Amino acid sequence: VTRIVCHQLAPVIGELDRNCDTIVASVTAAVTSGADVVVLPELATSGYVFESLDEARSLAIGPDHDVFARVATALAGTSAVAVFGFCEQGQGDVVHNSAAVVAADGVQVVYRKTHLWDTEKRFFSPGVSLPPVVDTAVGRIGVLVCYDLEFPEMTRHLALHGAELIVVPTNWPAGPRPAGERPVETIIAMAAARTNRVVIACCDRTGTERGQEWTAGTTIVDYEGWIAATCDADGIATAELDLVPTRDKRISTRNDLLGDRRTDLY
Amino acid sequence: VTRIVCHQLAPVIGELDRNCDTIVASVTAAVTSGADVVVLPELATSGYVFESLDEARSLAIGPDHDVFARVATALAGTSAVAVFGFCEQGQGDVVHNSAAVVAADGVQVVYRKTHLWDTEKRFFSPGVSLPPVVDTAVGRIGVLVCYDLEFPEMTRHLALHGAELIVVPTNWPAGPRPAGERPVETIIAMAAARTNRVVIACCDRTGTERGQEWTAGTTIVDYEGWIAATCDADGIATAELDLVPTRDKRISTRNDLLGDRRTDLY
Repeated sequence: VTRIVCHQLAPVIGELDRNCDTIVASVTAAVTSGADVVVLPELATSGYVFESLDEARSLAIGPDHDVFARVATALAGTSAVAVFGFCEQGQGDVVHNSAAVVAADGVQVVYRKTHLWDTEKRFFSPGVSLPPVVDTAVGRIGVLVCYDLEFPEMTRHLALHGAELIVVPTNWPAGPRPAGERPVETIIAMAAARTNRVVIACCDRTGTERGQEWTAGTTIVDYEGWIAATCDADGIATAELDLVPTRDKRISTRNDLLGDRRTDLY
Repeated sequence: VTRIVCHQLAPVIGELDRNCDTIVASVTAAVTSGADVVVLPELATSGYVFESLDEARSLAIGPDHDVFARVATALAGTSAVAVFGFCEQGQGDVVHNSAAVVAADGVQVVYRKTHLWDTEKRFFSPGVSLPPVVDTAVGRIGVLVCYDLEFPEMTRHLALHGAELIVVPTNWPAGPRPAGERPVETIIAMAAARTNRVVIACCDRTGTERGQEWTAGTTIVDYEGWIAATCDADGIATAELDLVPTRDKRISTRNDLLGDRRTDLY
């Protein structure tokens, strides 16, 4: 089984050093508790509610920033991986809303969010590539960032490319919902997990930032679409799930979720 | 607003005449109650649990069968439409799991289910065309049948072709689910409604047929993905929903659910 841990942190806008310390401490604690996959929120290094493009640029880092080396060190001697969002310095003045998959031997992949939400379009350049599936010692992992999840093309793409686990660093802005209902993003994750037979781990954030409140809806969904874990009082969601069954898409004697697609029609 | 009525009938296997009478009576009652769109279950004419291909053939009908004319008569003088599933006699000995959209002036369209579930593959030939969107006096309607709904390509296709309302005649076989959870098909409908900003009306069936039990999960979902109606004690779900907002896919100042798709990447 794979032990998946999401830590629903509260990044602080503008506090790059402090946020990096928080990330390293969180990964260290999760690995000590036996985590195989640690998921942290979107833009965990920088915070989210930028006031200007200049502010976003001032917080942007590259994969050479020491937070990645420090996270790799925290993972040393294990096969665990950590995934977290960061504000990435791209080519020239361009900034991306990115997520990195890090293992003990360093950054495995950086994915740049391809679907930007609202004011993100003021600050970030969207990625120009679909997310890869990273073959790690603890499973084949695909990464999406927040609003990406709301495009079923994205989850389908990752399932078709062999993802067993989709991890989703997010900052879900708080919104209204009917009493007793889960956040709609969770419902979308459940449907995507079920229709693709993959595990999905969404790590949201908490705290209030420049007046913006968050859903704090961290959820791990199993490959049948049911809730495997939500946060405990410390903001940590933990699930131990066997990823191997996700490789077999059969859901009845005669049905296969990917094989039943009508590729002659769409 | 459009008044949508789903009637969760219990078709009886093999009883074609009786089932047709039930359909006509149901449509008549719904229209009398002010329905604009009446949705009935999958295979409402024939029942579902066939013992043989011969049995399916013996219950198969074409659009010239008088149930369609009788339903049209029931709709006379109104702009309402009725959608129900039927076992269709195709070319030669071929049988399809189909659904018809009927208005006062007759059958508007027949859609043949393109994704067959389990033993259906023994009896039915899958459709060779994606469902059309039917421009009716009460809204632009797309039709899916049961398992079709579990392919996000299908709901996306209908949204891209202008569907405001997706109607889904279904026979959902009863399956296990965690306590307190909705049927997973309902969760898939909620996610599809939200990610495409369309209304989705799923009409399931009830009754036990040759030992098969049904979910009896009829649900109407609004275009934000929330539950608008489930069945009352008589097995009738009714929702009055404005379909016009489904034409506008903007969900923030800078976001449009269809416009944000990365058609350069997928």
